Amino acid sequence: MQQLFSTMDAHKFPSILLENAVNEFSKLPGIGRKTALRLVLHSLKRTQEDVENFGNAIINLRKKVSYCHICHNICEAEVCDICSDARRDALTVCVVENIKEVMAIENTGQFKGLYHVLGGIISPMDGIGPGDLQIESLVKRVQNDGLKEVILALSATMEGDTTNFYIYRKLSGFDVKVSVIARGVSVGDEIEYADEITLGRSILSRTEFSDSYTVER
Amino acid sequence: MQQLFSTMDAHKFPSILLENAVNEFSKLPGIGRKTALRLVLHSLKRTQEDVENFGNAIINLRKKVSYCHICHNICEAEVCDICSDARRDALTVCVVENIKEVMAIENTGQFKGLYHVLGGIISPMDGIGPGDLQIESLVKRVQNDGLKEVILALSATMEGDTTNFYIYRKLSGFDVKVSVIARGVSVGDEIEYADEITLGRSILSRTEFSDSYTVER
Repeated sequence: MQQLFSTMDAHKFPSILLENAVNEFSKLPGIGRKTALRLVLHSLKRTQEDVENFGNAIINLRKKVSYCHICHNICEAEVCDICSDARRDALTVCVVENIKEVMAIENTGQFKGLYHVLGGIISPMDGIGPGDLQIESLVKRVQNDGLKEVILALSATMEGDTTNFYIYRKLSGFDVKVSVIARGVSVGDEIEYADEITLGRSILSRTEFSDSYTVER
Repeated sequence: MQQLFSTMDAHKFPSILLENAVNEFSKLPGIGRKTALRLVLHSLKRTQEDVENFGNAIINLRKKVSYCHICHNICEAEVCDICSDARRDALTVCVVENIKEVMAIENTGQFKGLYHVLGGIISPMDGIGPGDLQIESLVKRVQNDGLKEVILALSATMEGDTTNFYIYRKLSGFDVKVSVIARGVSVGDEIEYADEITLGRSILSRTEFSDSYTVER
């Protein structure tokens, strides 16, 4: 039967250009070879201009983007729009893991202070220690800018807690209030389905009810 | 409460370059804005060279790729590697919807003939008629090359059946055998779970059992 098999077995792609494009797409996280092929074949149906816009947008982003010297958020200048906005409260700094969290908090419209992007959280399993994060520069900001409050807004995980505790210890010698965002039952959640730890935490961290009780800062 | 809201509401992205890249990624099928942002932030962590390779691979593919003049498969010359392979049976042509199907059939190693890529199937719902597909050029191949057999390997859907029938009618005046790939229970499937139509079809299209019964062409 073997001789009936085609000699093209190893020839999976009809074109090296196609194979290259599929290889490049499948290097992206969460994109397997089947999805990569689908995306590449879709690109072939788009106009030359559309495909060039796509490729150049990614290349230009990587080439031209920089990070804010103060908060390490992404920006196109030395200092980002948030840090250079005089209307914002420069003495309150919210510590976040990444750029995505800055965007998420900005979208709530509930925070008028500045940010500090750590670039990750302490995670010994992934080989990320305090030295890999922007913690020293946070300490310097507290020291030099006379910050009033540092709000820790990291993930509610073991790694987040570890990082919270590490930063708390690092800042313990300074005259700055260190707070952590509230953990409790999500707005819209039914108590019945909340997990025990979250529910327990929400009881311990209960707040006084008043006439003005509503979602506000 | 309104005055407590930040003035940054509309400012979702900290950088226009970032926003552009996210917009471009979310134009791809099946990629929403959250996934696009994740892919873009991942690209920021890659080296400049890696990102350039990625962008250029897609741009180059779109710019340099061409289609085989005979079978309309993707290639980098006038005629693709399959059509120009003298060891293949040039008188048997397998009609497929797209490049993906050529690759899938090539991977089985069970077919030694040539292909004809239609570029889609007849689908009035999507506004695709026979004129949008490479059917006329298939008729010309049958007419000019004296093909022995045309194998229809289209999707087992209403649209596939319609296209099969259309091609069958178009080729009825020529001295060519028109066959369709077998539909039946998948290898490895349990009869109990096969759907009724497939099971019924597999009984009607039963083949004679012999000593050499195995997966071969």
